[in-house]
Amino acid sequence: MTAHRPTSKPTAPRPLPPLSTVGILGGGQLGRMLAGAAARLGFRTHIFAPEKDSPAFDIATAKTVAVYDDETALDAFAAAVDVITYEFENVPVEAAFRLAHHRPVFPDANALSVAQDRLKERIFLNNWDIETAPHATIDSLDALVCESEAFNGPCVLKTRRFGYDGKGQAKLNSPSDAARAWETVAGARSILEAFVPFEMEISVIACRDRYGATAAYAATHNTHVNHILSVSRAPAPIAPETQARARALAVRIVDALNYVGVIGVEMFLVRSKEEGDRLIVNEIAPRVHNSGHWTLDAAVTDQFEQHIRAITGHHLGDTKRTADAEMLNLIGDEAEDLTPFFSEPRVKVHHYGKAEARPGRKMGHVTRLLPLSNGRPDGSISRNG
Amino acid sequence: MTAHRPTSKPTAPRPLPPLSTVGILGGGQLGRMLAGAAARLGFRTHIFAPEKDSPAFDIATAKTVAVYDDETALDAFAAAVDVITYEFENVPVEAAFRLAHHRPVFPDANALSVAQDRLKERIFLNNWDIETAPHATIDSLDALVCESEAFNGPCVLKTRRFGYDGKGQAKLNSPSDAARAWETVAGARSILEAFVPFEMEISVIACRDRYGATAAYAATHNTHVNHILSVSRAPAPIAPETQARARALAVRIVDALNYVGVIGVEMFLVRSKEEGDRLIVNEIAPRVHNSGHWTLDAAVTDQFEQHIRAITGHHLGDTKRTADAEMLNLIGDEAEDLTPFFSEPRVKVHHYGKAEARPGRKMGHVTRLLPLSNGRPDGSISRNG
Repeated sequence: MTAHRPTSKPTAPRPLPPLSTVGILGGGQLGRMLAGAAARLGFRTHIFAPEKDSPAFDIATAKTVAVYDDETALDAFAAAVDVITYEFENVPVEAAFRLAHHRPVFPDANALSVAQDRLKERIFLNNWDIETAPHATIDSLDALVCESEAFNGPCVLKTRRFGYDGKGQAKLNSPSDAARAWETVAGARSILEAFVPFEMEISVIACRDRYGATAAYAATHNTHVNHILSVSRAPAPIAPETQARARALAVRIVDALNYVGVIGVEMFLVRSKEEGDRLIVNEIAPRVHNSGHWTLDAAVTDQFEQHIRAITGHHLGDTKRTADAEMLNLIGDEAEDLTPFFSEPRVKVHHYGKAEARPGRKMGHVTRLLPLSNGRPDGSISRNG
Repeated sequence: MTAHRPTSKPTAPRPLPPLSTVGILGGGQLGRMLAGAAARLGFRTHIFAPEKDSPAFDIATAKTVAVYDDETALDAFAAAVDVITYEFENVPVEAAFRLAHHRPVFPDANALSVAQDRLKERIFLNNWDIETAPHATIDSLDALVCESEAFNGPCVLKTRRFGYDGKGQAKLNSPSDAARAWETVAGARSILEAFVPFEMEISVIACRDRYGATAAYAATHNTHVNHILSVSRAPAPIAPETQARARALAVRIVDALNYVGVIGVEMFLVRSKEEGDRLIVNEIAPRVHNSGHWTLDAAVTDQFEQHIRAITGHHLGDTKRTADAEMLNLIGDEAEDLTPFFSEPRVKVHHYGKAEARPGRKMGHVTRLLPLSNGRPDGSISRNG
């Protein structure tokens, strides 16, 4: 019995060899799962995070506990690693710039700065002919009153920066809600968006490697509870044509950003009799994404490995589904007793090792494997590179 | 969209909760992959190993660098963990006994002592009506000469203890090879076995939980090069009836040992016209096993998670294949350039993070995913518990 062993072809740049160190800013569950993926490929990991009990520390080779504007700590971190990435988009862009003087940072500071600011993000998307909800910039209560009158319907005030899980958002049903909404965002620079009467929320995890090749996973259907992702189903129950369009849209974004790594693109699907399915981009997350956790158990290559492959200079892996999947987030005390999940034969359990189960805190997730609904390839890799 | 969330049923003993610490003796790739599986389930890990550059340290929460007869270090280790296991069978049984005074040790010292000694192992197997190659005990060169004459054909001298990857073995084609063979084993207490003219080597990874439930993965076909496992194919190309018999045999062994955890059972398949397929057990490894690495990428539950589930008091996971698989070990310099493997779409790469690529050293493995050859369940779980 012999097995085929392929021979090497020269590529440039050379991928990082095993035992190289991947530096990760942020020590939450995304950093933890990135570190796990890096370890499986033989990389060492170094986590930089401000919280001394960061769950990613448990499985990292090395750690730095410091705030993101500690320049001495950032420089020492850069010197200790071979490539740098991050698990969340609120890393100060100044830190990313500083680190990039020493080591490659992926995704780059440009992608980070676009994703950090809802206004920049929308301008970027619209420049690339990608539809977003109609929006206006808001810098004062007067502007908010005025613009909400102009919208003439329900709309949502969103801070330009640091919003996640519904934080920094307020809905306005009429201009009379303006003062309350302005209080909610504490006077922060914001945008006002028309409320989109969507059919469902979907998202696509896309990726791009250092050679310009791109891939995308099946679009998922996401349900939120209290503004926090509760369930993702892959694939989303949408027309194959809409699936393909959603993935193509996400790939357009990574190409436009000259992006390296994994990105999450959230979209509203709006159904209209006249125009069919419209896809309106709600948010881009320049990182691995909660709605892509199903790929850990139901895709040939999971999003964490994919991200590590991309940033270390390897080719992308296969994004095909191996099963349909339903991913449930375990929030707060929902992860206290995992026994019932362990007893279900086709359920995969993931616990993030967080000590304290605060309300609204993501403690783990489970993925139910379902029969593969069709043999259609989810996101063939186009080797542009 | 709502998702079914099961409710808990009381079970005894209570499984270890997340954030409990799994102590692992041994810091090689098996310990590393066990630590990875434990982390995914939210457990902390503490690795105890003598080598300061043990690859498992990279992803462990805590580590102890000490030899296995350092009683102070063993006691401190036991006090720091909630359950103890090991990644290799040459842990001194005295250490296992000592640790068991403080914390549960799985598999227990009895399983360890049986598996550590080829003679005890064969007596145990034969007592349970499991066939092994005919053997004789050898304590002197005289005995070796005498017994090899009695065997009247090719036979193999094997040390009773500390043999692995063909170490501590010597083949005798005739009694005239006795002196050379005795030199090879350096006069260690040994057994002499008739050489088995086998059709193929197969192995089964079986498991048993703390409630007495058992499961087994598909038997694999193993090929060795220089006595080191080179390729495992799952499932082995054998008759369904032989598959079933091989799995049942491995399950009989875990039941007989009152075993908790994952076990590897190596067998010779001998084909005879008169008797059909005979299965002769060659070795049992009381731990996760190299021939089970394919389960990481091609089974619902991999052997590492399975072992962690069993020892932490959780129920076993599903052992079904999700694909057929071909696992290739990467030995010595074969893991130097992984690029070609990264470019194959359905290949999963695993690198163990070892710094030095010594000849014969297991550096990593890759698993090729192949189309699922049939829908037959591989090893349904029988809930005895």
